[in-house]
Amino acid sequence: MKAAVYIAVSVDGFIAQKDGDVAWLHDPRYAIQGEDFGYSQFMADVDCIVMGRNTYEKVLEFEAWPFTGKRVVVLSRSLQSISQPGAELSSEDPSALLRRLEAEGVKKVYVDGGKTIQSFLSDGLVYEITITRIPILLGSGLPLFAELNASVHLQHSKSHAFANGFVQSTWFTPPESTRYA
Amino acid sequence: MKAAVYIAVSVDGFIAQKDGDVAWLHDPRYAIQGEDFGYSQFMADVDCIVMGRNTYEKVLEFEAWPFTGKRVVVLSRSLQSISQPGAELSSEDPSALLRRLEAEGVKKVYVDGGKTIQSFLSDGLVYEITITRIPILLGSGLPLFAELNASVHLQHSKSHAFANGFVQSTWFTPPESTRYA
Repeated sequence: MKAAVYIAVSVDGFIAQKDGDVAWLHDPRYAIQGEDFGYSQFMADVDCIVMGRNTYEKVLEFEAWPFTGKRVVVLSRSLQSISQPGAELSSEDPSALLRRLEAEGVKKVYVDGGKTIQSFLSDGLVYEITITRIPILLGSGLPLFAELNASVHLQHSKSHAFANGFVQSTWFTPPESTRYA
Repeated sequence: MKAAVYIAVSVDGFIAQKDGDVAWLHDPRYAIQGEDFGYSQFMADVDCIVMGRNTYEKVLEFEAWPFTGKRVVVLSRSLQSISQPGAELSSEDPSALLRRLEAEGVKKVYVDGGKTIQSFLSDGLVYEITITRIPILLGSGLPLFAELNASVHLQHSKSHAFANGFVQSTWFTPPESTRYA
């Protein structure tokens, strides 16, 4: 099993400001009544969300836990325990975690958070990437991508521009061409 | 006068490999007979191209000089002279250069090359950005964007997905919102 990525990013490639803040994403200028930019459709098939400690702690600051009814695994080697109902702690590496989740019946994993996404990409464990490009140059922040040991060819699946200027693209990583350089 | 950017970039934000090589852009899998991805349409209005020394030296390696008939300014403080017919050397800063070009009757400037684009963006001198997103995670290379002192809101103009998986978007930088943070 491989994992899916679904994330918003600035035109200059940042997923959050340096302190992890994502308030810029919720700028009123971007709101479209009744539009969730495909999130609920994406989430309908997801039966497990994997995130790192930074993302977990950011989500805990939200008014309500947004993943009720979904299994959540927090990957961390520093956390000792986890208090959020529905969330589990793991210190496994990405491939071991995915093997275990698959054995436990999980069908689709959603990987969230910059460093966690980077580690799954680096290990060749991402099969689908949906990026919603926000019309802003954030200038600085936490980058979506880090360096990889080799290039990965992607298969473009679809792109859609929303009325607020969001441009969303989905790519697949074809098994035959995930490493070419 | 402000400048326009028109550039291809990998999904992970690189415009070239670390040594400046752009052969990956010309992978046969991307070729579409008779399709130039809007380049000639973009160039039709351009009457001056501005690039840095690195890009200039890369272009000199091409089989033929691709900018015949267009004025080209190479921004460099290290070059002493320039041999290419049609190319001029300048050590001005971006805003001084644009003021001079405008006084000389130039209407539309195309800024090319990573560091040159970064300096024009940093000085708020870019009004239009067209990015053609190539379906590859290059893994490493020369980044399109560098840090900015402030965020810049963009106005999405249009996006188009080509049959080879290229996704091209154009944004404008509205004067009223070029600096918000």
